[in-house]
This record gives sequence, C-alpha cells and structure tokens, in this order.
Amino acid sequence: MYRPQNLRIPGPTFVPQAVLAASARPLINHRGPEFAALLAALTRALQDFLRTEHDVLTLTASGSGAMEAAIANTLSSGDKVLAFSCGAFGERFAAIAKAYGVDARRIDVPYGRAVEPDLVRDELAKEKGKEGAKAVLITHNETSTGVLNPLKEISAVVRDSGKLLLVDSVSGAGCTELEIDEWGIDVCVTASQKAWGAPPGVAMVTMSPRAWKAYEKSNLPKAYFDLGTYKAALEKAQTPATPAVNVFIALQEALRLMAEEGLEAIIRRHRDLARATRRGLQAVNLQLFADERYASPAVTAFRPPARVDARNLIRILRDDHDTIVAGGQGKMEGQLVRVAHLGFVTLQDIVSFFSALELTLRDLNQPVEPGVAISATLRAYAESTQQPSRPSARTAARPAPDAVASRR
Amino acid sequence: MYRPQNLRIPGPTFVPQAVLAASARPLINHRGPEFAALLAALTRALQDFLRTEHDVLTLTASGSGAMEAAIANTLSSGDKVLAFSCGAFGERFAAIAKAYGVDARRIDVPYGRAVEPDLVRDELAKEKGKEGAKAVLITHNETSTGVLNPLKEISAVVRDSGKLLLVDSVSGAGCTELEIDEWGIDVCVTASQKAWGAPPGVAMVTMSPRAWKAYEKSNLPKAYFDLGTYKAALEKAQTPATPAVNVFIALQEALRLMAEEGLEAIIRRHRDLARATRRGLQAVNLQLFADERYASPAVTAFRPPARVDARNLIRILRDDHDTIVAGGQGKMEGQLVRVAHLGFVTLQDIVSFFSALELTLRDLNQPVEPGVAISATLRAYAESTQQPSRPSARTAARPAPDAVASRR
Repeated sequence: MYRPQNLRIPGPTFVPQAVLAASARPLINHRGPEFAALLAALTRALQDFLRTEHDVLTLTASGSGAMEAAIANTLSSGDKVLAFSCGAFGERFAAIAKAYGVDARRIDVPYGRAVEPDLVRDELAKEKGKEGAKAVLITHNETSTGVLNPLKEISAVVRDSGKLLLVDSVSGAGCTELEIDEWGIDVCVTASQKAWGAPPGVAMVTMSPRAWKAYEKSNLPKAYFDLGTYKAALEKAQTPATPAVNVFIALQEALRLMAEEGLEAIIRRHRDLARATRRGLQAVNLQLFADERYASPAVTAFRPPARVDARNLIRILRDDHDTIVAGGQGKMEGQLVRVAHLGFVTLQDIVSFFSALELTLRDLNQPVEPGVAISATLRAYAESTQQPSRPSARTAARPAPDAVASRR
Repeated sequence: MYRPQNLRIPGPTFVPQAVLAASARPLINHRGPEFAALLAALTRALQDFLRTEHDVLTLTASGSGAMEAAIANTLSSGDKVLAFSCGAFGERFAAIAKAYGVDARRIDVPYGRAVEPDLVRDELAKEKGKEGAKAVLITHNETSTGVLNPLKEISAVVRDSGKLLLVDSVSGAGCTELEIDEWGIDVCVTASQKAWGAPPGVAMVTMSPRAWKAYEKSNLPKAYFDLGTYKAALEKAQTPATPAVNVFIALQEALRLMAEEGLEAIIRRHRDLARATRRGLQAVNLQLFADERYASPAVTAFRPPARVDARNLIRILRDDHDTIVAGGQGKMEGQLVRVAHLGFVTLQDIVSFFSALELTLRDLNQPVEPGVAISATLRAYAESTQQPSRPSARTAARPAPDAVASRR
C-alpha cells in the first residue's frame, strides 16, 4: 500500500529524490580519481556553507562521532572544560568529555531556555586567577528542546577569554547563521542527515589553526577519529579508512541543490517556516516549550494538550496520518512533541503536518475548528515573506534552469 | 558516455542493482517501528552468517572503527597483547592498540606468508611464567597481501592459552569459513562493503560472553564506540546514535540475496573463483605473491611483469579498459597488483577482468596469446566445480523463485 510519510523529525530529514538517486549510483574506488574529485569538490562546498577557509574534515560516522573527535583531538586527560548545556545534546557533549577523562564542569540552564552570553561571561570570570578551563563546549541548536543558543554573542565572549571554543552545530549548521571563521569557532561539527538533507553516515568537523595547535599537545587516545590522519589523507583527496562513498555522493548532490537556493535564502526559509509553525501550534492552543526569543529554526517543541500523553499523540500522527514527529528525550519523554522544519522542507510540508495534527487533535477529543492551524500558518508565512502570492520567487536569488524541477 | 566499470578492488565491492535500489528508499525514523524491525531482522541474519548466538552490534563506521571498538571495549591501558601481523591490516590493528596505550607486541611474518599456528603456539609459550599478554590480535584475511590466515587452527591454540582472541575479519567474514562460537572467537569485526556487497558505512562487531566480562574491567576511554551502549540500545532495537539508515537497508537486502545462495555455496564460489583467478594469472606468467597454501578467497595479489611499475599497469586497466584493481599498500606500492573476487562476484566478472588484463599486457609489450588467461581460468573453474556446463546449479542449494533474476 502506498503510504508516503511526512518525515518531520529533526534528522534524518527528508531527502530529495535527486539525492536518493545519487546515493544509488554504482560503487566507485575510494582511492581512485572519481572519489578524489568528489571529495575535493565536496570539501570546497562545505567550506562555502560553513563560512570557513580552514579545514573541513569528513568522517564516516554520525554527529556524535564528530563530537567525540572535537574532544579527543584538542584536549588532554585532566583538562578542565566548561560545558554549557540546555538539553540532551549539551549533556551528551559533556558526557563524551568525561568518558575521556576530561574534567568537564557542566553548567545547566533549564530545558526550554537558552544559554545566555551573560551566563557564559560570569562563568568564565569565575575561572580567573586559578588554573582555569582550557575550552568551552556549547550546543548551537539544541535539538531536544528546540532552542537556538545565541552563538555569535557567546563566541565573542569566549574569544575574549582566550579559551578554545568547541561547538556542536550538528543540527544548526546549514539552516541558520553560522560564521565559523568570523566568530572564531575552533572546532565545529555537523552531520549529513540534518540541514544538509542527505542520508545519515557522514559527519563534518571544522578545525581552526588554534585547534590544530591544541591537537599537537592533545594526549587523548584516538585512531579512527584522529583528525591529523584525515588532514593528511585529504591532501591526497582521500580519507584514512573506507568512506561511506554513497553518502558522500548524496551529500554532494544535496549541496548542489542547496547552492542553487543559496545560503541566505535557506536561512530565511527556515526562519519563516519555524515562525509559521509556532503560529499554527498556538492557533490550536498548544503550548510552545522553548523561550521564543531563542526559538530554533530547525525544530519546534510543544506540550501536548492537558491530560494527553505526547506518545499517544505521536502514535496517532504516525499510524493514522503517516506523519512522523519526535517525542521528548530522556526526562522529557511523554511530555513533549517535536516537529522539525529542517533541511529540504517546504511550506507544503508544514501545511501537511498541520492537517494531520488537526485531525489527530480531534481524535483526542480536543475541540479544533478545521483549518484553523493551517490558516494561522499561512498567515504567518505570508507576513514573513511579504510575497504571499509568489513564495517561490523568494528563493530565486541564485537561479538555475533546473532548480525547481530537481527539488524533488 | 556509458562506461561501466568492472570494480575489482577488495572493497567497496560490486553492489547489485537490487541492493543499490534498496539504499535509495526514502528515509525513515531511526527511532520508529520500521527501523526497529529492520535492525532486529538484520541482526538475526548476521548472527546466522557469522555463526554466533551471541551479540552482533552494528556501528556506523568503517571496518577500522570496528577494530578500534574491539580494542577499546576489552582492554585497559598498559595491558599486554600479542599482535600477529602479515600485512598492512595486521599492522593497523597493532597501531590502534598502541594509540590507546596498550602494550602491543607485534609479531610479523613476511608479507605474502601466513601466520602459522605453530608460531602462535611458540609465542604464547614465551608468555608463560610471567605477567603475560591478555589478548591475541589477528587478521583473518589480510587484504594487503592476499593471505588467509588459518584462523580455525590459530583459534584452537589461543583458546588453550585462555587469552582473549580479537579477530579482524573485515574482509574474511561472509566469504570463507568462520565459526565464531565454535572456534571461540571473543570479538570479531567485519564491514558492509566487503563480502556483504553493500555500500560502505556499517561495521559489525561480535562479542562473546568472555568479551563482555573483559568489557566490565576495561578502562580505555570510549563513547561513540562504547559497545555497552549498542547492546543496551539493541534491546530496544535501536542504535545509540543516528545510524546510516540507508546502508542498513541496503545491507539487509544484500543479506537476503546471500541467504538465497546460502553460505556454503558462497564459500565454494569464492574458493573456486579465487583458484580460477590464480590459474589465469599464471597462464600469462604473472607471479602470485601469496603462499598458495594460504591464498585468500577474497583477493589475489600478483607481481607485475619484470620492469613494469604496477601503478602503470593499474592505470591502463582503469583508463583504457574500465577495470578497477588495487595496488600495493605502504611499502608494497608499485610492486603489487591486487584483484578482488569478493562479494557478489561471478565467473563472468573474472573473465572480463582477464580480457582487460590480456589487452593491457599487450599494451605493455608483454607477449600474450589472446585468450590464454581466460582459457586457463575457465579450465580451472570447470575442474573445481565438476559441473562445467551448468555452473549455476552449484549455487542452488537454497533455491528461491527470484534468485537468479534478482542477482543484478
């Protein structure tokens, strides 16, 4: 039975047909000239999107593997770090550091709130005059709560302190402003299945010159994630071990589609669709979880209606309406629903989500006037774009003959 | 221009069209019921092929990542291990151990030779009466030289010593005899792009109950490769981090094709095609590199003709005849050609290779009577199978209606 899904989880995100088709090309030699050309072009495209002239290394792993690489390549056992956390992925970053014997002091803000630059400044001030922390760990976009931390301002504070800045932007890079070089980020990680709209299996790590200096002194054990071997291999346009060739090919195709749209347009689209999603949810009286000043452009978390278990709502969306959303993680299980608007997402995907959500709410005996969420969504989107009748014109900054045809 | 390649490297191996198509299916939720069913079925199929009732854990990484997991999960800093090596991958296994602060004593045999059980017995005897090695590291199939170590006999020797046995069977599992439980192998690793005929990106690790006991005591840092988290996640039919979903789907399809053929028939096919390849090479006076008593069923290494750089021969095969083979690794660069007969390989693939090789040898001014290598190959194959006119009947041990149709 043909039941296409509306995949609205924050990764793996929807992968366009052109990208899936690219991923199914026959295998090639990962030590041959075709792969060398692919890796060189892919690396340049990633440098463009990540706004860095320094190294971008591609690992065959998920984002968590790249987070581990960030730590294992710049720190030493016993090093102190400040790990700012506002959710499950901030906790994971700190836990990885601790697994390596790094003395990670975790500074938590309540779920749903952002790490504010003042907090970072205050905590860094406490470090003065003693053997202080060597690095700051921070999540850019906290997927578990739908919070986007103000990384630009945080980066400025960390830069002033002279400490290394390691950033988990697994779900932030490619969908929101991120200026790796200008903001002085030393290590930043992301992954293929997030904003990049490719299948999972490839993670990317940027390394600043300062990060390479730290690498020279780092004594943590590393082999598969030893970024020095990736850098050396990249000089021959290779990877140290066998790469997930097909995911690399898919990622290159996805980056081609993204380049057609242009990074600025992509960032606007995410911001506008995220806002439209929040307005739709509020129109059916659902409570947004995150502080709206720091609402994520990638994923929106909301509370289920009173006396409804989020898992039940998620199950009905999936089983009856083929709409796949995520629940709360860890201690938030059953208490949150998370709907993603990340990667190759369109207004139509959000409208489709709301049609399923409205029906689901009715199934749960919640009074909902049909179409009310969709109307609010469309209204908000029209306000954002100020081009209500021709939204596609908005994304035509870098036109290409097949840009629209190849989207799906 | 349509120029299909004959991909004859020892991984990534040729991936059948049905498997590529499976890898291009739309993305699914890695925390949802479809992926749970897939992972459970995949794990059972891998247990069947690897002949183990114990844990098989699937990592999103290449084989080298799984080799690291084998070490990081069973050993502690300062532990002594004996690392038997007969090539580049034996050296890599030891190097990974050393990167983790494990005291790996490497016992090398010359390239082209096998690790003999007597050598293992003698080296283990030296350990008696002192604080001995905790584990033995061994490569099953040494891809860099085309040697298959006699793992059954080696395993028996190691078992008698009571030491842990960690096996790199990245390119051995699925193409040759391997009885994980019966032989008492504690940790064994393999990877999707080898005998399994799926794209790269997934590695598999088996863990015996003894290996789990060692895990409890292991103090090496681990996070992404912490196998305890994979075991816990597998109980919910999940993985700890986002898996390379599409590679998992492809691997399942590849395993379905392999189950149609049956493991015994697959092992026979590899043995027979490897032997036929060796006879073809000898028919054009090319010197086999490996001790034929231990010739690999996965890959055959040979010397180029006198005064010919292997890289030149490999380039002509690729550029003029679309035939992709591998060269020597490390110190063997320029001195070896390696042709693989691993995974979904047929007699036709080998014949095609020899037609390209014969033409290449003529390009290099080597006297070759056209067809002589192909004739020798076919003769050897017919002798092996003793069913010269109906070779496909050989593989029909477990017939399935679509077995032949779905091969490519």
